[in-house]
Amino acid sequence: MSTASFTSNFFGTGCFWKVESRISTVKKQNEGKMFVKCAVNTKTQKPEKAVRIGVLGASGYTGSEDLPDMVAIKDTNFSDVDAVFCCLPHGTTQEIIKALPRSLKIVDLSADFRLRDISEYEEWYGQAHRAPDLQKEVVYGLTEVLREEIKSARLVANPGCYPTSIQLPLVPLIKANLIEYRNIIIDAKSGVSGAGRGAKEANLYTEIAEGIYSYGITRHRHVPEIEQGLSDAANSKITVSFTPHLMPMIRGMQSTIYLEMAPGVTIEDLYQQLKISYEDEEFVVLLERGVVPRTHNVRGSNYCFINVFPDRIPGRAIITSVIDNLVKGASGQALQNLNVMMGYPENTGLLYQPLFP
Amino acid sequence: MSTASFTSNFFGTGCFWKVESRISTVKKQNEGKMFVKCAVNTKTQKPEKAVRIGVLGASGYTGSEDLPDMVAIKDTNFSDVDAVFCCLPHGTTQEIIKALPRSLKIVDLSADFRLRDISEYEEWYGQAHRAPDLQKEVVYGLTEVLREEIKSARLVANPGCYPTSIQLPLVPLIKANLIEYRNIIIDAKSGVSGAGRGAKEANLYTEIAEGIYSYGITRHRHVPEIEQGLSDAANSKITVSFTPHLMPMIRGMQSTIYLEMAPGVTIEDLYQQLKISYEDEEFVVLLERGVVPRTHNVRGSNYCFINVFPDRIPGRAIITSVIDNLVKGASGQALQNLNVMMGYPENTGLLYQPLFP
Amino acid sequence: MSTASFTSNFFGTGCFWKVESRISTVKKQNEGKMFVKCAVNTKTQKPEKAVRIGVLGASGYTGSEDLPDMVAIKDTNFSDVDAVFCCLPHGTTQEIIKALPRSLKIVDLSADFRLRDISEYEEWYGQAHRAPDLQKEVVYGLTEVLREEIKSARLVANPGCYPTSIQLPLVPLIKANLIEYRNIIIDAKSGVSGAGRGAKEANLYTEIAEGIYSYGITRHRHVPEIEQGLSDAANSKITVSFTPHLMPMIRGMQSTIYLEMAPGVTIEDLYQQLKISYEDEEFVVLLERGVVPRTHNVRGSNYCFINVFPDRIPGRAIITSVIDNLVKGASGQALQNLNVMMGYPENTGLLYQPLFP
Amino acid sequence: MSTASFTSNFFGTGCFWKVESRISTVKKQNEGKMFVKCAVNTKTQKPEKAVRIGVLGASGYTGSEDLPDMVAIKDTNFSDVDAVFCCLPHGTTQEIIKALPRSLKIVDLSADFRLRDISEYEEWYGQAHRAPDLQKEVVYGLTEVLREEIKSARLVANPGCYPTSIQLPLVPLIKANLIEYRNIIIDAKSGVSGAGRGAKEANLYTEIAEGIYSYGITRHRHVPEIEQGLSDAANSKITVSFTPHLMPMIRGMQSTIYLEMAPGVTIEDLYQQLKISYEDEEFVVLLERGVVPRTHNVRGSNYCFINVFPDRIPGRAIITSVIDNLVKGASGQALQNLNVMMGYPENTGLLYQPLFP
Repeated sequence: MSTASFTSNFFGTGCFWKVESRISTVKKQNEGKMFVKCAVNTKTQKPEKAVRIGVLGASGYTGSEDLPDMVAIKDTNFSDVDAVFCCLPHGTTQEIIKALPRSLKIVDLSADFRLRDISEYEEWYGQAHRAPDLQKEVVYGLTEVLREEIKSARLVANPGCYPTSIQLPLVPLIKANLIEYRNIIIDAKSGVSGAGRGAKEANLYTEIAEGIYSYGITRHRHVPEIEQGLSDAANSKITVSFTPHLMPMIRGMQSTIYLEMAPGVTIEDLYQQLKISYEDEEFVVLLERGVVPRTHNVRGSNYCFINVFPDRIPGRAIITSVIDNLVKGASGQALQNLNVMMGYPENTGLLYQPLFP
Repeated sequence: MSTASFTSNFFGTGCFWKVESRISTVKKQNEGKMFVKCAVNTKTQKPEKAVRIGVLGASGYTGSEDLPDMVAIKDTNFSDVDAVFCCLPHGTTQEIIKALPRSLKIVDLSADFRLRDISEYEEWYGQAHRAPDLQKEVVYGLTEVLREEIKSARLVANPGCYPTSIQLPLVPLIKANLIEYRNIIIDAKSGVSGAGRGAKEANLYTEIAEGIYSYGITRHRHVPEIEQGLSDAANSKITVSFTPHLMPMIRGMQSTIYLEMAPGVTIEDLYQQLKISYEDEEFVVLLERGVVPRTHNVRGSNYCFINVFPDRIPGRAIITSVIDNLVKGASGQALQNLNVMMGYPENTGLLYQPLFP
Repeated sequence: MSTASFTSNFFGTGCFWKVESRISTVKKQNEGKMFVKCAVNTKTQKPEKAVRIGVLGASGYTGSEDLPDMVAIKDTNFSDVDAVFCCLPHGTTQEIIKALPRSLKIVDLSADFRLRDISEYEEWYGQAHRAPDLQKEVVYGLTEVLREEIKSARLVANPGCYPTSIQLPLVPLIKANLIEYRNIIIDAKSGVSGAGRGAKEANLYTEIAEGIYSYGITRHRHVPEIEQGLSDAANSKITVSFTPHLMPMIRGMQSTIYLEMAPGVTIEDLYQQLKISYEDEEFVVLLERGVVPRTHNVRGSNYCFINVFPDRIPGRAIITSVIDNLVKGASGQALQNLNVMMGYPENTGLLYQPLFP
Repeated sequence: MSTASFTSNFFGTGCFWKVESRISTVKKQNEGKMFVKCAVNTKTQKPEKAVRIGVLGASGYTGSEDLPDMVAIKDTNFSDVDAVFCCLPHGTTQEIIKALPRSLKIVDLSADFRLRDISEYEEWYGQAHRAPDLQKEVVYGLTEVLREEIKSARLVANPGCYPTSIQLPLVPLIKANLIEYRNIIIDAKSGVSGAGRGAKEANLYTEIAEGIYSYGITRHRHVPEIEQGLSDAANSKITVSFTPHLMPMIRGMQSTIYLEMAPGVTIEDLYQQLKISYEDEEFVVLLERGVVPRTHNVRGSNYCFINVFPDRIPGRAIITSVIDNLVKGASGQALQNLNVMMGYPENTGLLYQPLFP
């Protein structure tokens, strides 16, 4: 497997997740060997000069086969590196990033820098924030919404999967004052891969196949991230109802969002606003009126497909939004963000089409 | 396979669904042979005398193996028959039942008699009601809610699967004035078997496995049935938001219900009301506080498991309710209703426990 | 959940497996509390007097809900108990059974007593046999093949799932000298539940869904058990080729067996022999000629469905055999064996029909 | 979706299958509109000049969205076209290809030209061959085996999925006289997508999920194709035992092959021969000794992963081979063949990596 094909594989198929989930078991074996160099796929895409990218937390994934040039962080000559993806577990990332040279551009895939309010971080993650100064310069990496800020960012906090699928349709509607801020109800359904590769009974085939259940009702850690994004758009505190469900699907995520339109607003108004917001975007696709987004449509790709439907109750609307939780919901958006930060074409390495059937 | 084991198989595993779905292709081959006799399992349960039950629409299911005594309706001596399950397709049932002797007790599994308002039937099913007089004597077969009426009924309309999972938790709360009637939002997730055995591209393995999508948004035919049941409980017209989702699961159904509590009402009030309503019921089970119902808990059984959770938004509650769509959502409840109508123990033939894993 | 429904649930759904798999984690918490009393379902079946059955290794499964009367082995008054199912892990069972009163009838579901040759046990399980004297009195519990011996047995070793599905079709053909002993090739496919509920990465939904692979090629621990049974039938050492595959299925198992017929033997000869062998059996079903056994046909039931097909290569035959690995392949056959040992109707508690769809 | 991304989507994800399976329903609506032009992805790969490729039988796939320039065959100016993929149903292709200009290079994905012996075609497909003269110039498109012949071919018959997975490991071993020709036993397991998108009851989710069964025992239409390839390699008629199984998997295929080694041959000899045969190949990968091929390893990619294992029976070997039935087993190999025919880099458009998880 050549280096050239490595990058696209790495980002296109969401292996950040695998990297991340392996960390806990791997750490003991490879203590201190948590750094990997790799080159951008220079065959299929032509950035003007080669960029040297490190992946923090990639150690041990599939051994030397995929990731040949592993070195320990402490042995790394960071002058060789232009940018870093940080794939370390939640709670361990703040201190490590704090110690990195300021010359590096960083996309962090953990949750450690997603919440601007460090007291919220402490409340939801149960530990003190260890890099509050660094937090101030973080840009939240919801690419289509914050592209301009990402362009000049040094440290980007890559969004969670649920928050990505929810904010993409809601932020433009809130900004345009088209929907009420109260009683936004989100019923989300996720594939299992978001839970990582850790060996937990809850994620066994026998526990997941042929069934569904709600989990983390009102208490899922993505709640404050969702509310932060929506509140920013509203310039007003928004509290949402958010209920995720775990279902028998390796990858994929749908958020079904129930909301009240502002007085006088119609479904067509919502549709037009989303159309205007995303018609020039490559990865966020508003479907034709009446066409239902399906997770199959986006599997293995960086797309987010959305649509808006009239509810049976007058004045209400239903939005459905689908992504691949491992791509647009994780590594795909991370690469998209890095492309923006480095000034490369935003779709570099992301041209993979959905895999269907 | 003895007659004795037939009944339990028939009802325990939801084969009504298979029966029903086979009708369209079978009809041509077996025109006029749509009647089957079978005996209740007298070994495991002891009704005082044997009851003779017919199944209208069972022809051709698995041929002579399971259903040996098939005869055409026109050749049937109905004096031999005490009761009938009617498993014919929607739209064909009204005329057939109209022609049956009035001495028969009937449980109809189609949707043809579920809507009391025949203009609603015409609106949602696109054809005139052909037995409006008969409609007036129909009792809606939500057993736990309408048991007394079912006891003396001659013709019971067996509820749909979604309406069963939704009305069981909501009716007692509405009757007790504990929840607001407005903005009841129902996000439902169903396995594929509810769609029948018809060969449709939409239900192919390749179209269903590893994905999810909403369907019939606001337009699913179970909407008027749900609203009829809730409005009856409220003595006031209730309009609901109902969005079903199709997911990769053979059997099973979860309804996640988002609602506003009446002023001053707490989650504990809802819990207590459900406890009082169902503590003496065998098949509707309110779980311990905080325990999440899972479709796995009820697979292959006649149970409905429910629970109520506080929402993050003050004053709101979340209810989840799970059933096996082919058992409590179809043939299991049909048998439960017949047991009530015949004066037998209500759980006769329904002692099957969930199949897990 | 009443005691009456407990037994059928327990055996009908293969929860022995769950019991067994929980042992390792449970043991620490409940050291010494590994005994449970339960009563046979006296409602649906009527043994002449109540039998008191213990389950060794059931502690902690779902706590008091299912198994209310847990007591430690050391505190058990075994004069209260007539029979015991032993569901302890491989390697721990020999010593425990050795210490039990000889008045007890025992069905052991572990592999600890399946191999008559204790040196084979040591070779495949990597430890010395700790109860070689006890081994001599063990009867191997392949019910249809060894029923007479089981009737008078005190200690029955319940067969493994693969060996059950393979020996049932092959033993009668070998005994009748209809097939060659050389080059018996078995390609088996199993659902995941056989691997237990232990939290192993290999059994995660993401690792199992939508894929297949061979495992334990030539080295699976069921090999010596299969060869022992076939060699016994042949009065001659038989070595088989056995390759199991793990596939995305919770429960179910198919063995596809490729063999050479003895000179002059025809497919019809094989068919007739199997017909004679099993026509009076309730749980082993030879299908009509040409009908393909499917794991769906036996899911959740104690049946084994088999059939025999001509191969394209002259003189060869193909046999397929399907069981539910958790029922006929584990707890169902265990109960069947106990019924035989106690003189009860052999199908007591086993009348569950397959769950399809 | 730009034209540039079209080709990679088209071939990388096996949509030929979808194209093919849609034909029957589409034909009536689009009678005569069965031709599509498309351009090779000139961004990611750089053939020296643009090649104009037609897809016969692509009409109606997803309408104008993907395939904008559809024209009827009769209206096509073939002087605009360099090459054609023919994706028409079995039995209809011979006449259509006969009518095409001889200047076109053609890869046919149907079975119509795979069997060199037209009497075999008639026997297995039940109709006379309608282009026997054309058959004589056909090259069988098993790329790694017949690359030199494909280079100069005008009409290539693209192999079936089962034959691809079986011939790739066996042909080199047969040619090197390392295995016996008798009693080659192939137990194959396939995902459902190979059956196409036709709405058949057998392929419903409810019929496929959570189960397995053998189908087409000894009579599958891929048998003569397999035997033709192996017999060619042997210069001697080979008859195989071939039993396919249908399992719950959208895409993916494993062939488990049981064989006898020639006298004196060892497993290491087989391994070395496969190593020599494929070490310079990009898409056929012999795994490290002892590593088990998994369909997950190749999902969504053009790879074939193989390995060889010692059997427990002396002198025997077990080979497992996995492919994605829609890629290396269909459209991927078709594109690989066209690349060879046109003199392009063989991996053009095929750099997609496996999608896992």
